[in-house]
Amino acid sequence: MNAYEQLKNLADALAPRLTADRRSLHRYPETGWLEMRTSAIIHERLTSLGYACLTGAKAVKPDERLGLPDPGTLRRHAEAALAQEGTPAAFLTEEMRQGITGVIGELRCGEGPVIALRFDIDALGLTERADEGHRPAREGFASRNPGMMHACGHDGHAAIGLGVAEALMTLRDQLRGTVRLIFQPAEEGARGARALTAAGHLDDVDFFIGNHVAPTRALDDGDVTVGTWGSLATSKLDVLFTGQAAHAGGFPEQGRNALLAAASAALALHGIPRHSGGQSRVNVGVLRAGTGRNVVPDRAEMQVEVRGETTKINRFMEAEARRVCEGAALTWGCGCQVTLAGQAEGQRSDPELIRRVGEILRETLPDIRLSSEQNARNWGSEDISIMMNRVQARGGLATYMRTMTDMASPQHTAGFDFDEAVLPLAVKVFGATVLGLMGVKK
Amino acid sequence: MNAYEQLKNLADALAPRLTADRRSLHRYPETGWLEMRTSAIIHERLTSLGYACLTGAKAVKPDERLGLPDPGTLRRHAEAALAQEGTPAAFLTEEMRQGITGVIGELRCGEGPVIALRFDIDALGLTERADEGHRPAREGFASRNPGMMHACGHDGHAAIGLGVAEALMTLRDQLRGTVRLIFQPAEEGARGARALTAAGHLDDVDFFIGNHVAPTRALDDGDVTVGTWGSLATSKLDVLFTGQAAHAGGFPEQGRNALLAAASAALALHGIPRHSGGQSRVNVGVLRAGTGRNVVPDRAEMQVEVRGETTKINRFMEAEARRVCEGAALTWGCGCQVTLAGQAEGQRSDPELIRRVGEILRETLPDIRLSSEQNARNWGSEDISIMMNRVQARGGLATYMRTMTDMASPQHTAGFDFDEAVLPLAVKVFGATVLGLMGVKK
Amino acid sequence: MNAYEQLKNLADALAPRLTADRRSLHRYPETGWLEMRTSAIIHERLTSLGYACLTGAKAVKPDERLGLPDPGTLRRHAEAALAQEGTPAAFLTEEMRQGITGVIGELRCGEGPVIALRFDIDALGLTERADEGHRPAREGFASRNPGMMHACGHDGHAAIGLGVAEALMTLRDQLRGTVRLIFQPAEEGARGARALTAAGHLDDVDFFIGNHVAPTRALDDGDVTVGTWGSLATSKLDVLFTGQAAHAGGFPEQGRNALLAAASAALALHGIPRHSGGQSRVNVGVLRAGTGRNVVPDRAEMQVEVRGETTKINRFMEAEARRVCEGAALTWGCGCQVTLAGQAEGQRSDPELIRRVGEILRETLPDIRLSSEQNARNWGSEDISIMMNRVQARGGLATYMRTMTDMASPQHTAGFDFDEAVLPLAVKVFGATVLGLMGVKK
Amino acid sequence: MNAYEQLKNLADALAPRLTADRRSLHRYPETGWLEMRTSAIIHERLTSLGYACLTGAKAVKPDERLGLPDPGTLRRHAEAALAQEGTPAAFLTEEMRQGITGVIGELRCGEGPVIALRFDIDALGLTERADEGHRPAREGFASRNPGMMHACGHDGHAAIGLGVAEALMTLRDQLRGTVRLIFQPAEEGARGARALTAAGHLDDVDFFIGNHVAPTRALDDGDVTVGTWGSLATSKLDVLFTGQAAHAGGFPEQGRNALLAAASAALALHGIPRHSGGQSRVNVGVLRAGTGRNVVPDRAEMQVEVRGETTKINRFMEAEARRVCEGAALTWGCGCQVTLAGQAEGQRSDPELIRRVGEILRETLPDIRLSSEQNARNWGSEDISIMMNRVQARGGLATYMRTMTDMASPQHTAGFDFDEAVLPLAVKVFGATVLGLMGVKK
Repeated sequence: MNAYEQLKNLADALAPRLTADRRSLHRYPETGWLEMRTSAIIHERLTSLGYACLTGAKAVKPDERLGLPDPGTLRRHAEAALAQEGTPAAFLTEEMRQGITGVIGELRCGEGPVIALRFDIDALGLTERADEGHRPAREGFASRNPGMMHACGHDGHAAIGLGVAEALMTLRDQLRGTVRLIFQPAEEGARGARALTAAGHLDDVDFFIGNHVAPTRALDDGDVTVGTWGSLATSKLDVLFTGQAAHAGGFPEQGRNALLAAASAALALHGIPRHSGGQSRVNVGVLRAGTGRNVVPDRAEMQVEVRGETTKINRFMEAEARRVCEGAALTWGCGCQVTLAGQAEGQRSDPELIRRVGEILRETLPDIRLSSEQNARNWGSEDISIMMNRVQARGGLATYMRTMTDMASPQHTAGFDFDEAVLPLAVKVFGATVLGLMGVKK
Repeated sequence: MNAYEQLKNLADALAPRLTADRRSLHRYPETGWLEMRTSAIIHERLTSLGYACLTGAKAVKPDERLGLPDPGTLRRHAEAALAQEGTPAAFLTEEMRQGITGVIGELRCGEGPVIALRFDIDALGLTERADEGHRPAREGFASRNPGMMHACGHDGHAAIGLGVAEALMTLRDQLRGTVRLIFQPAEEGARGARALTAAGHLDDVDFFIGNHVAPTRALDDGDVTVGTWGSLATSKLDVLFTGQAAHAGGFPEQGRNALLAAASAALALHGIPRHSGGQSRVNVGVLRAGTGRNVVPDRAEMQVEVRGETTKINRFMEAEARRVCEGAALTWGCGCQVTLAGQAEGQRSDPELIRRVGEILRETLPDIRLSSEQNARNWGSEDISIMMNRVQARGGLATYMRTMTDMASPQHTAGFDFDEAVLPLAVKVFGATVLGLMGVKK
Repeated sequence: MNAYEQLKNLADALAPRLTADRRSLHRYPETGWLEMRTSAIIHERLTSLGYACLTGAKAVKPDERLGLPDPGTLRRHAEAALAQEGTPAAFLTEEMRQGITGVIGELRCGEGPVIALRFDIDALGLTERADEGHRPAREGFASRNPGMMHACGHDGHAAIGLGVAEALMTLRDQLRGTVRLIFQPAEEGARGARALTAAGHLDDVDFFIGNHVAPTRALDDGDVTVGTWGSLATSKLDVLFTGQAAHAGGFPEQGRNALLAAASAALALHGIPRHSGGQSRVNVGVLRAGTGRNVVPDRAEMQVEVRGETTKINRFMEAEARRVCEGAALTWGCGCQVTLAGQAEGQRSDPELIRRVGEILRETLPDIRLSSEQNARNWGSEDISIMMNRVQARGGLATYMRTMTDMASPQHTAGFDFDEAVLPLAVKVFGATVLGLMGVKK
Repeated sequence: MNAYEQLKNLADALAPRLTADRRSLHRYPETGWLEMRTSAIIHERLTSLGYACLTGAKAVKPDERLGLPDPGTLRRHAEAALAQEGTPAAFLTEEMRQGITGVIGELRCGEGPVIALRFDIDALGLTERADEGHRPAREGFASRNPGMMHACGHDGHAAIGLGVAEALMTLRDQLRGTVRLIFQPAEEGARGARALTAAGHLDDVDFFIGNHVAPTRALDDGDVTVGTWGSLATSKLDVLFTGQAAHAGGFPEQGRNALLAAASAALALHGIPRHSGGQSRVNVGVLRAGTGRNVVPDRAEMQVEVRGETTKINRFMEAEARRVCEGAALTWGCGCQVTLAGQAEGQRSDPELIRRVGEILRETLPDIRLSSEQNARNWGSEDISIMMNRVQARGGLATYMRTMTDMASPQHTAGFDFDEAVLPLAVKVFGATVLGLMGVKK
């Protein structure tokens, strides 16, 4: 029985564990930088399997974390996570409790390529459906963390990563090279890849593989798409305008109106010129200003995002947006603070890697159907782009794949759920790709 | 001992009770249309004193209440009020529980003028200081209703009204005419006078007297100012813009951006032309829009107020404001709903009544110093204006007085408190004024 | 000598006349709906050649003319045109004097396809360079009409059309079908095609051919590009806001501020959402408002344009723009009038016709190099799109070609000039295409 | 015959000359800094009467002139003025030709107070009515300078000044002190007083008297009002935004949109907070931006004015306005230049001087009726305020009077004309005031 057949058998045998892992994570979803229980579970599992693990500041560069929750939220969540079912307290480090989440597991098997696999692990700030029509509710694994939900499948991604870890450790004698498993925090909002990349984990990578579950049929005609390209580059900006309060009836001239600064900024942001180089986007999604009807507002907060079909267009949009906010603040005599809260770049899977992975999969997993379009277009934004661009800039090859599964409701909605048959399938795909790229023969 | 000497003795004897009443009300402050415990206490006291009482729809016309809290808030507050110390449950009527608060007490003593006195009874939406440096906290009568506080002295006003009620009932054999005691809900935000006036209580009034505690020295050089004029007419508007949500990255053209409608409206509202006829004001005090960074906002709420030195200027401002909101909604393809949440008018105390009250007070209460400026300018807005204008339109005379007291901190601040010596003083002023206007000789 | 050789000889022989015609038109350039001398010259020439001519309301539907100059401008220009060198007064009809310009010439040669050729004839509102460095100035054919200039090559297009007319008339015995020569007014600003199309001239067309001179090398690698696609659909809007003047110091509240309506509209227009379906554009290119520093402006004019990568996107932009202007007017209590001043659609040359024309040219004019990209991308906007879409909607085939020539300065600049060798070249291309499509053998 | 009777006789005898002077000036009206012929005439007359004259940089500080016309306009007007009827070329100095207009005439008569009288001499940028119904047209003295008109009576003021000069020179033996006659340029738009004041002419003044013709009845119930107060302080600002042009269809992202900067500024300017200290005003009266529909506008000009009931309020408004323009420019990535084009302050006539002048006039010119309100309210703005404030700051007394006359149409309208009987009346008032303040007995 060759390595690929062993892999298939292992993955099929792991299926119940994969489902159990996914459901445990689904029940306790954790949004960006709060993946404390999640990281602890991964940390414990990888350690027990024999992986060398990096956590805390060795996994992500703390200062480069974007969109960090406030200290009170971190503290309260840490307390909650520790109290939850199945949290391995010994592996929930002090750094994790401070929001330095994410885990890197590494397995070195002598000479050979460095292959990094990325699994994102965070949840969304949504409230999950609680009715019987929703399978997770009916079967008891719906979210128990109020206002958080795994509605994009990252619970599955984390479970797949754990399955890949176990399968590759079992097959380690046949490996030639280094396997690096990157469990990434804070992908939603494009907040985590920057801090992971800054910690250097992509600098020596020869092959980089990411994968996302995607809805059957809607996007593709196979089980697996080997490469994708084109997600929009984006910058998420938190903007704070500060003015001077005054009694609006008594002394309006003493005020500095932060609400009007924000209003001016919102209008001008949406008026940033279209770009001839491709699609661009801007949205002021949230605006909160003022404390009372008769008080000149001294504070206004905005949540803004810009996007661009290319990193260059996005940089144009971000630079314009920052200047617009400064100008609006000056117009109304206010101060302005713009904080980067998330970032992704444009991305393109390498044709060479797509070709090689395609060959490997067709040869070693003939039952899996590959999509006819091998390098499909992505919309939305994904911070894996930052990792891919780093690998490519250093001479490595990267691809961002899709694995298809039936979904109960679209991603990012309260009724999201997926067919867990995709979990062992994805373990096979990741595993065979690693074996193939390391030159293991069928 | 003449009636005025009896009055003075009564007021001095009532002082402990006045303080106790004020502190009981201070401990359980109730904001507009939630004055349930307060109304029940007044209702019980006036009834036991022998006044004919009107409550519910006979006190205020329900449909004319402005700025009504939502049903859930009313229900929860009613439950809380019933459970609180000293609430006379039998007098907390079903109508009061629905937010139809306020009490009218009437005493008829044969032929003679109808004299209406107004006492406002509501608290503010502030959180009271809890430190030892704040006397109400130190002495145990600070607010126990979270987020509510008597920070403008209406607790004192209500206590004064109860004291006046007792004093005048005691002196009833000497009265000639009708005394009407109006305990007004929802003065803050200018929300209650309209509903009281609509119920007809001002239609047959010959003399109308209001009074507000005011800071010693800051505004005046005596103990009492007999008349004031000029508070700004105002309209409080709640504005809701409704649009259409859309994914801002995916399909921005499908959105209808309520946030931008609100932003446009805010800018244009502040650009309503100045008025050559006198001072005007406009403020968008609060703006809340949007649900997420990457969603086109489908909902935006604004709390707006306009003011004018005259009712006419305010009407101009309000009409402009309403049209601006409609226009901004149309600009961005949104809907718009503007709700009147408060209203006051311009006001002017009658010189004739000022003259008569001045004579009465100088003659019957010679120890009280009258301010040198007998008809002082008011700023801010006060919905007593609606009552005064109604009385004056029907041929009666009205004045709005001030009684000075030392204050620990300005009105409408979390550290507000006042010297309770003003309570019996105000009882004397109200009482002597009623006696004098009814022709009772010294 | 076959028809194609005859054609080549004819075109070469016509070269001096083509240059002379082009220079005469260049010397007296006429902007949209003022092409009176130009139309009269074409009218006379076609008539004398034996073409059946349509002018006035038979050429363009008067009510569908967009961006018409005001009556005074029409009257003054008619007087000037009549007085100019070489104007055939007898052919300058009363309708032309009213701005109903353009000429259709038709030649029927029995059974066979209806082939329409389009030549646009109008100039731009530019002032031409007058220095010796500019050949038209140096050689005496620079513009003598102040503020007007042939800076896009339509003088050449008209001359080519006259050359084609003469060549085909000479070869008429060999033709099978109908040749329709459409000399279109008011292409600049996309103002004329709509009125021509509304007159029905495209309804029965089997093959429709347009052509534009284009700069050598910059856009293409051959002499001729057989097809192009993709110019942006566009709508040009003239917007007038009307308010109420008032003395800004004395009675600002009496004003209705049209300047602020325009300012609000300008900002909101640039904030129309990006479209996920492709590129969109919006520009407020000109804003003129107000009469004096101390007067509330009662009038504001804007020149606006929107564009879309598709006609559908452009329709979205136009509908948004119209609503924005209405909303801004309402916001400021003003009236608003939006007038369509120009319009073009998205466009796509038919692959089938590109293929056939390519074969014809390669076979019959082997000296001419065809571009390697046969269906090149266009940017900018062109109202030939309206004609092409009409032909295609009725089952005909259309293509919009380019013929390359050296240019002294980019199109739409004051120093524009081109190498007149392109004129006989284009006559050959048009002529051979007509012959080939009518089945004339080489 | 005492000095006052002499004065009355002189004034009556001068009446025909006053009318002739006024009509000569009316026929050749000259707007601010173009009063070249006007200054030359005054210069010649004062010199011939024996006054010591200051012109050019000795009259007005050149760098402090506000709202100066461009050099071409100055040059063309100088040529025209020299060619006009009655221009004394020898007195039209080189400095005047450069727009350093205005004349100061001084007469020293020993010890005694320095009394300055101010006469403004400029016209308005209006086109005068030319029909027979308008007396100046009918009688041949309507404006011959296109687009300029004496529509505010400054032609009369200048004629009065010349009459006063002649009368006082005749009575010089009876004077005790110094008479300074200030013929001020560029009062309209509040552009000249600053430069005159900067030249020091008000620094040693004991009594300063200004006077304006005003419509009978409309403002007053007498022939003369001795004092006025309260004209609004104002600053006139010319604002230029500069951006970067770009093809709006091709490369919108390359533009810097000056039109949108101006639009943002216009909206925010009108949103400058109301001031609790009194009336304020703001107006963007003119906005001109952009060159073509399809070009991102690279240039926008605005004519702005702010006003305040006090100089302090106006300073607040001006500072806000300047910051708003800077902020709007920054918002859109543009440059911004704000130029002060006019300025006036708040003003208040001295009660002491009003009392003294009132006594003098009642005693010496008993036929003249003084208004019942001796210190009337002014609206509008007047740069005499700058002079008055300077005199008062240095310890002198100032008053700004009105002399009533019938007007054919309101000031600042194309049909303005006035009853010239006011001219000798005003000479008497000025003359008697000077005599009285110098202590000349009746």
